[in-house]
Amino acid sequence: MDTGSNDVYAGICPARELLDRIADKWTTLVIGVLGPAERPQRFSELRRQIGGITQKMLTQTLRDLERDGLVLRQAYAVIPPRVEYSLTDLGRTLTEPLEALSKWSEQHMEQVHQNRTAFDRAAPAHVKVAS
Amino acid sequence: MDTGSNDVYAGICPARELLDRIADKWTTLVIGVLGPAERPQRFSELRRQIGGITQKMLTQTLRDLERDGLVLRQAYAVIPPRVEYSLTDLGRTLTEPLEALSKWSEQHMEQVHQNRTAFDRAAPAHVKVAS
Repeated sequence: MDTGSNDVYAGICPARELLDRIADKWTTLVIGVLGPAERPQRFSELRRQIGGITQKMLTQTLRDLERDGLVLRQAYAVIPPRVEYSLTDLGRTLTEPLEALSKWSEQHMEQVHQNRTAFDRAAPAHVKVAS
Repeated sequence: MDTGSNDVYAGICPARELLDRIADKWTTLVIGVLGPAERPQRFSELRRQIGGITQKMLTQTLRDLERDGLVLRQAYAVIPPRVEYSLTDLGRTLTEPLEALSKWSEQHMEQVHQNRTAFDRAAPAHVKVAS
């Protein structure tokens, strides 16, 4: 593999496109549920654990993750049909960095909220200086 | 701080919104440039190092990061005017998790590409099974 060509800072590099896919809120949340789960999860179980995700968005996110080889989709020919999702070995390697992002968001949310309030209060003066 | 209320899996939690902001390709790339930089960077320097980013997108990303308190914007009243950007202490805490994501993308790009090719080759049968 020519690692020299894999540079997320090069606009045309496929690694940039991959970063865009994994640096995504829904990807982070789906992998964050599947990572610590002790058994494969059904669609409805995933949806219940990820507040606010629509059926369409969860379907699309799971399909993209399956296509990337990060999620394994297993369909069982039973009645009613059963489909379960779990992380592949490759998907597991993403658990740690994505979990670090989720934790960061939870830990620093208050601070960022305070920063935004302060910024917005100062914004009119700031805009004047900048223009 | 009521940490119980900061849960990225709760749809209405502000931490979810923050995750959406930092789990973003351009945020990752801007912080990835500012993190290891030995001195504050000008707008033009940032733009040169992030292939493919538009002026509008870089402006918006920097403004959002400044508002979040992750990036410090310093304007010097000289001629021509000089504006420089650097990470705040809070911004520095994001360097490591975001760098892990960039590295993951670069290291696993080939594998993911192969997975996608295999998936697309099998897709018609897959779709038939799923429907």
